Amino acid sequence: MGSERADHVDLSLDPAFPLHRGGKIEVRPAVRIRDAEGLALAYTPGVARVSQAIAADPDLAYDYTWKANTVLVVTDGTAVLGLGNIGPVAALPVMEGKALLFKEFAGVDAVPMCLDCTGVEEIIETVVRMAPAFGGINLEDISAPRCFEIEARLQDRLDIPVFHDDQHGTAVVVLAALLNAAKVTGREISDLRAVVSGAGAAGIAVTKMLVGAGIGEIGVADSKGMIHTSRSDLTKVKRELAEQTNRSGFTGPIERALVDADVFIGVSAGHVPEAAIASMAPGCIIFALANPDPEVAPEMARKYAAVIATGRSDFPNQINNVLAFPGIFRGALNVRATRITQGMKLAAAKALADAAGDGLARDHIIPSPFDERVAVNVALAVEAAARKDGVARINPR
Amino acid sequence: MGSERADHVDLSLDPAFPLHRGGKIEVRPAVRIRDAEGLALAYTPGVARVSQAIAADPDLAYDYTWKANTVLVVTDGTAVLGLGNIGPVAALPVMEGKALLFKEFAGVDAVPMCLDCTGVEEIIETVVRMAPAFGGINLEDISAPRCFEIEARLQDRLDIPVFHDDQHGTAVVVLAALLNAAKVTGREISDLRAVVSGAGAAGIAVTKMLVGAGIGEIGVADSKGMIHTSRSDLTKVKRELAEQTNRSGFTGPIERALVDADVFIGVSAGHVPEAAIASMAPGCIIFALANPDPEVAPEMARKYAAVIATGRSDFPNQINNVLAFPGIFRGALNVRATRITQGMKLAAAKALADAAGDGLARDHIIPSPFDERVAVNVALAVEAAARKDGVARINPR
Repeated sequence: MGSERADHVDLSLDPAFPLHRGGKIEVRPAVRIRDAEGLALAYTPGVARVSQAIAADPDLAYDYTWKANTVLVVTDGTAVLGLGNIGPVAALPVMEGKALLFKEFAGVDAVPMCLDCTGVEEIIETVVRMAPAFGGINLEDISAPRCFEIEARLQDRLDIPVFHDDQHGTAVVVLAALLNAAKVTGREISDLRAVVSGAGAAGIAVTKMLVGAGIGEIGVADSKGMIHTSRSDLTKVKRELAEQTNRSGFTGPIERALVDADVFIGVSAGHVPEAAIASMAPGCIIFALANPDPEVAPEMARKYAAVIATGRSDFPNQINNVLAFPGIFRGALNVRATRITQGMKLAAAKALADAAGDGLARDHIIPSPFDERVAVNVALAVEAAARKDGVARINPR
Repeated sequence: MGSERADHVDLSLDPAFPLHRGGKIEVRPAVRIRDAEGLALAYTPGVARVSQAIAADPDLAYDYTWKANTVLVVTDGTAVLGLGNIGPVAALPVMEGKALLFKEFAGVDAVPMCLDCTGVEEIIETVVRMAPAFGGINLEDISAPRCFEIEARLQDRLDIPVFHDDQHGTAVVVLAALLNAAKVTGREISDLRAVVSGAGAAGIAVTKMLVGAGIGEIGVADSKGMIHTSRSDLTKVKRELAEQTNRSGFTGPIERALVDADVFIGVSAGHVPEAAIASMAPGCIIFALANPDPEVAPEMARKYAAVIATGRSDFPNQINNVLAFPGIFRGALNVRATRITQGMKLAAAKALADAAGDGLARDHIIPSPFDERVAVNVALAVEAAARKDGVARINPR
């Protein structure tokens, strides 16, 4: 029936559609109610005693409701994958996918929430109002630059983690992959000069993470070219970035900065010509993460690069957020963290890099998300970092 | 650990607490993702094709997301059970209980949402923003008179059912029980004169439902006495009620109206003295629904009444919303109803009355919620009524 309504794609020939029929997640009882006695405990009158206890001591909600294990996955549908502003209901399959992966990989209960509003103030107010019953907020597919202000102001107002996965999840996986790519090519991260193409949510977060991890040098290009402090067209966020990056002062098109660069990271979908890739340093590292069309064709990059990663599942070294977000939230929820710090993200990246194991190679710089060590090791590292950073409310061990 | 923090109740001695530990519901994958190929269909890149199709035709969300089967259960925690305004997080166990029962009794996925705001405008805006990914809205435990305006204005703005269960769920079950109580005592509902104690959400909805079902006569008392058109202290909602009820023009305390009345319905917790019950008509019907203390002690009522119902599970004839809301939403979702009409509620009440079966007796006027016919029969009746009332968007059979 769908194929008559959506002419641009024959739904019956695409296995994604039968897989999605009826949705990918469900809400299920965690306890069985078999008789009137069970009903009288789980619902009235028994539930009233639990509610009363929580009213007297709200912290008991962590023990006697789903709050401690549950994350709200919030989008406004303005920057969904590579599709752009497709609106809230069209974003729902992506949010359901995240919820599925949260549970499958880390046992976290996640609720998709697709908001029919796009104003910064509206989104902030709405999330604050929804927050009481959740242990964390995962912001998703909210367009830049609104996403930066929304995340920062929500984190100021809430005492649970607020985490924009398109920024930080991507940044954690990129750092993990780069740590291992450096290892494979016999270098330290402090030896590397990197150029990032794209100054949206992912580009800015990746850059800040690499700066935090001690990268040798890094510069960022947006659609107008390299970002530097003399440009007069920068947003507040890009101006801050200009001050923290591009120590060599590259100006103009990205091609200039790529000459002799060690690392290219594409998070923009803007294609890079072969000549620019050819001008990079020997043994260079190329992460071309745009989906479905990488900024640099992997076949071409092979001619020049020692290590190549993409966002695609049909090439080696897939940079996929699913490697990070389940374990990060698992760890944060386990210690009832009040926020997710830079230290927790760095720890997650290092644990993720370590989880790739002993078989590191140019085509194996990142583990498979189906490797059971991944989420567990990331969670343990995040817990430890949360305690170190003083944002853990409990010590579960 | 809880018992140290909540001194007024020893949690370890109450079986409700271990049952609630960790919460009563969870979000689970409805599809299994076993390998990279499955991941590439359920998440990027496959999910992008589903999102794209929904962006082109939003109705496809009913086929390829959980929307068609999912209800948002919204509270602000201002009127939780008999506990009053205990706030959003303390209301969560009740909302989880509803979600559990939605799934257990009718296969409906329900998401609890406990809002940290109480203003009418705030709640309306927030629910409108949250609505896109849901097939219906169940309002719960929102205090009167705000609940009336919130429900009406939300239903005006949304094209999915908005249903305040404290009003309509209660009213459906009371009508079903009264239909059977009349049958057991050999009367028609049009033969009965009823007096309702309580003009809150439940009292007003019950009264309107009984008027809609053709009750002989009905009057309502609030804490100031009988509601009649000459009173100058009435809210807008109570003034409307005064115009539709109390044809005999009772004034003053409820005791006057109870003389020779056939039916007493208590939804207020205000106790009624034995002399007033004794003054009712022979073969009278008493529904004393306050929890945990009925308005009329069942043992005392036995001396005068032919049929007695309470809200308690430890007496016969428990009036419990769980008999209604799962089947009502099941039916509404099945036909993608745009709203829940008076006709659908009346049909639900009649189906629920019929589901009590052939064994009707003074201590069996209502079926058990564990009787599998209940939700199915209510759902089928609601579907048929939705089609009749022109609010069904699809015909599933």
